[in-house]
Amino acid sequence: MTATATGPHHLQLTREGQLRHFLTLDGLGRELLTDILDTADSFIEVGERTIKKVPLLRGRTVVNLFFESSTRTRSTFELAAKRLSADVLNLDISTSATSKGESLADTLYNLEAMASDMFVVRHAQSGAPHFIAESVTPKVAIINAGDGRHAHPTQAMLDMLTIRQHKKTFAGLKVAIVGDVLHSRVARSQIRALNELGVAEVRVIAPGTLLPRDVEALGCTVEYDMLRGMKDLDVIIMLRLQKERMEGALLPSEGEFYRLYGLDRVKLALAKPDCIVMHPGPINRGVEIESAVADGPQSVILNQVTNGIAIRMAVMSMAMGGQLAERQQALNDMAKQEVRS
Amino acid sequence: MTATATGPHHLQLTREGQLRHFLTLDGLGRELLTDILDTADSFIEVGERTIKKVPLLRGRTVVNLFFESSTRTRSTFELAAKRLSADVLNLDISTSATSKGESLADTLYNLEAMASDMFVVRHAQSGAPHFIAESVTPKVAIINAGDGRHAHPTQAMLDMLTIRQHKKTFAGLKVAIVGDVLHSRVARSQIRALNELGVAEVRVIAPGTLLPRDVEALGCTVEYDMLRGMKDLDVIIMLRLQKERMEGALLPSEGEFYRLYGLDRVKLALAKPDCIVMHPGPINRGVEIESAVADGPQSVILNQVTNGIAIRMAVMSMAMGGQLAERQQALNDMAKQEVRS
Amino acid sequence: MTATATGPHHLQLTREGQLRHFLTLDGLGRELLTDILDTADSFIEVGERTIKKVPLLRGRTVVNLFFESSTRTRSTFELAAKRLSADVLNLDISTSATSKGESLADTLYNLEAMASDMFVVRHAQSGAPHFIAESVTPKVAIINAGDGRHAHPTQAMLDMLTIRQHKKTFAGLKVAIVGDVLHSRVARSQIRALNELGVAEVRVIAPGTLLPRDVEALGCTVEYDMLRGMKDLDVIIMLRLQKERMEGALLPSEGEFYRLYGLDRVKLALAKPDCIVMHPGPINRGVEIESAVADGPQSVILNQVTNGIAIRMAVMSMAMGGQLAERQQALNDMAKQEVRS
Repeated sequence: MTATATGPHHLQLTREGQLRHFLTLDGLGRELLTDILDTADSFIEVGERTIKKVPLLRGRTVVNLFFESSTRTRSTFELAAKRLSADVLNLDISTSATSKGESLADTLYNLEAMASDMFVVRHAQSGAPHFIAESVTPKVAIINAGDGRHAHPTQAMLDMLTIRQHKKTFAGLKVAIVGDVLHSRVARSQIRALNELGVAEVRVIAPGTLLPRDVEALGCTVEYDMLRGMKDLDVIIMLRLQKERMEGALLPSEGEFYRLYGLDRVKLALAKPDCIVMHPGPINRGVEIESAVADGPQSVILNQVTNGIAIRMAVMSMAMGGQLAERQQALNDMAKQEVRS
Repeated sequence: MTATATGPHHLQLTREGQLRHFLTLDGLGRELLTDILDTADSFIEVGERTIKKVPLLRGRTVVNLFFESSTRTRSTFELAAKRLSADVLNLDISTSATSKGESLADTLYNLEAMASDMFVVRHAQSGAPHFIAESVTPKVAIINAGDGRHAHPTQAMLDMLTIRQHKKTFAGLKVAIVGDVLHSRVARSQIRALNELGVAEVRVIAPGTLLPRDVEALGCTVEYDMLRGMKDLDVIIMLRLQKERMEGALLPSEGEFYRLYGLDRVKLALAKPDCIVMHPGPINRGVEIESAVADGPQSVILNQVTNGIAIRMAVMSMAMGGQLAERQQALNDMAKQEVRS
Repeated sequence: MTATATGPHHLQLTREGQLRHFLTLDGLGRELLTDILDTADSFIEVGERTIKKVPLLRGRTVVNLFFESSTRTRSTFELAAKRLSADVLNLDISTSATSKGESLADTLYNLEAMASDMFVVRHAQSGAPHFIAESVTPKVAIINAGDGRHAHPTQAMLDMLTIRQHKKTFAGLKVAIVGDVLHSRVARSQIRALNELGVAEVRVIAPGTLLPRDVEALGCTVEYDMLRGMKDLDVIIMLRLQKERMEGALLPSEGEFYRLYGLDRVKLALAKPDCIVMHPGPINRGVEIESAVADGPQSVILNQVTNGIAIRMAVMSMAMGGQLAERQQALNDMAKQEVRS
């Protein structure tokens, strides 16, 4: 019943406030984010037991629609869907359907007509999953698996789950995000989530050339000097350095960047002793992080991977539940209408 | 007891007349076609319910053997097989097995020896699925997913299902097939099915350059002028225009073709008011059909897609049933033989 | 209690002697090899029944990690895993994950963190699966699907199963391996298995240029003249001729090789009348074997394919069992430790 971007009932929520698409963290309140984390926690246990299956999506069809190829992200969604007992169809759209001259919308209408229940969408263009959920196939649950520079909300949520596992609560935490914030769809989603969940401070640490204009407006403080920026940190989130940026004028050299913004043991020693180190992977050892830190006792990088499956299972099952509730509601409304007329 | 391609008990039927391969509509009587439609109807309901699974092919291995790549058709067969609970193996043969110098027959023998139960075959050469069913692996159920210019029988059957859903009966219907009949494997199968199911008239509408010689012998009337051809139609089936044909001398230009044989609102108004519009997809908007028609109230194009899954489930489960009956029969015959000797 | 490659309790075995990885036949005694064959025999029956599924790996995640592409081998492992009810993830590593600059070890750690239970590894480098099992992800069951020139142990075991099916016992058998032993990972594994299972003689038949130095030390006799070598044989195993070897100086010509070492009806007539003919496939008809022999009554080549699924099911389920026992043991040890301290 709470308010949103345009209407009284936000595109990604049902009228009752349940998730039915998962496009962005914007507009999702602390309660819903916590709900996702709690649901994911219950799936962590599923990953540990002998039979890693729950029947929540049994008989449902999940289509992985990757307009931008990413074996790693696709694999985590595929495993999550299979552990929910769904049927999974992998489509690498960049190389297939649209090649026959068919429009994107027609491809999606066709997949919907095959009784697909969920599209996991990865797209180089910001806003593509939002567009699909709003204007193309609103009755199919749309899960954003990364769109342009806009958002990568499941990545941000798996980070939140990892922080909560190690720090128990978000209250009072000081969290730094280090590196190429400008080009990172993950960073935007992370800043949003950390603020909503109530940390004490989100601090971005980067050279000015790798920060968006008005970055503070996103809800963070800025620090250009990493040595100073490490003070009092509970959590450090390193961003992946897109090596192709190096070739432009944005950065001096790989060695120079590592000296200033790479996370090594010396810099890490300036944070709190129990500060945890996170990275979305794949890591560039010696480019943005020292091997001894990536593999060290404060690193929780592999926990993030494990949590990635659990978060995806949570989001997929919740969005499916919301879609089904919405469809039921529509049927009920139709029935009432008929009685009246 | 003798079996020949032309005789009373066709290659694709068991001695009791059950389907065991699905290669062509030739030789399948009205009763069997109606049986396929009725079975598909029962699967439509499966697509609509929460758990879209039936256990009919549970533990069966279906191999998608695509010698000609087609993501769209492969996806529908893959989904159909999964909803029947089969294990599915996708093989893009054009790029793999035969590259080591192995013969096609050896590849198929190997797949059969892996205890495969069904091959879904797409091949650029007319007759390839028939050859496989007759001479290579007759004990594996062979489903034709399109062979050369010869046939695409599941496409034709999904069209029949769509017509029956909207018109209830085939009796008295006037059906037009419009466009490149010459190069269309779908058109051949459609004309066959429509005649067998007893429509009043099948009318092909096309320029002479896009018609096979003696097309009337297939069981249809011919109309070169589309405006005249629209009269009294209950069903219009548009064919996809293979743009590469344009480059040859067969057609003047895309614009010219659209003016003469494209389906727009003006032409459609000349048919019966409840005439339905069909297209096998993917559609070329503005090339063979106007967007307003493709998306309009008379279009049943997306119903065709939904029906495509149901028809494939029907054909796969029926052919599997026939193969199993045949194997059982063979065992019984062998037992009798032993008792006698 | 320490485990080394040379010690009493080998890397691929648990402390109780159960299989937990399957890397090589070295160090596996006759009892364990027989155990694998017996288990596979029980799965043969699974392949023949209507529902070809057993729930032994239900809820388990098997990742096919092919660093060297092989559709055929991958397909057999995929089918075996699916018939054990596992969830299967196919990764063609040569073209994906490592392309982002991530190290092999990081890719594997990530897959392990996604709660994968088993890696089926194919690698061009000898020893890669061993390295992974020892130093990277020892808690994931590693199955060697062929590594460099080193070993292809599931292929050798499916050959043993085929021999046992046709000859009942290994005692007293004379077995020849014919062809390019030098480059064959299969031949090494076969010689090892045949000796362990107690055949009377393993005879390699090849030109000197295609034999490793000191080949007798592997446990075989050598014969350069195939006509003489056929005498008294119960089993002939033909090796696949890698045509690319021809281009080097190792062999005179394809025709010459076939004349000297190709298996035709004339040569086969020199072996025992009930001698069986085997080949790992894919076969080069007319290059290393005559078609009439490959398809003849003494050929058991397609039985090998069928047995390949059963052997892979056996090895996968046994290794999974060993891994689970090992994990349980580790938990128990930890509990005891805690009680003591």
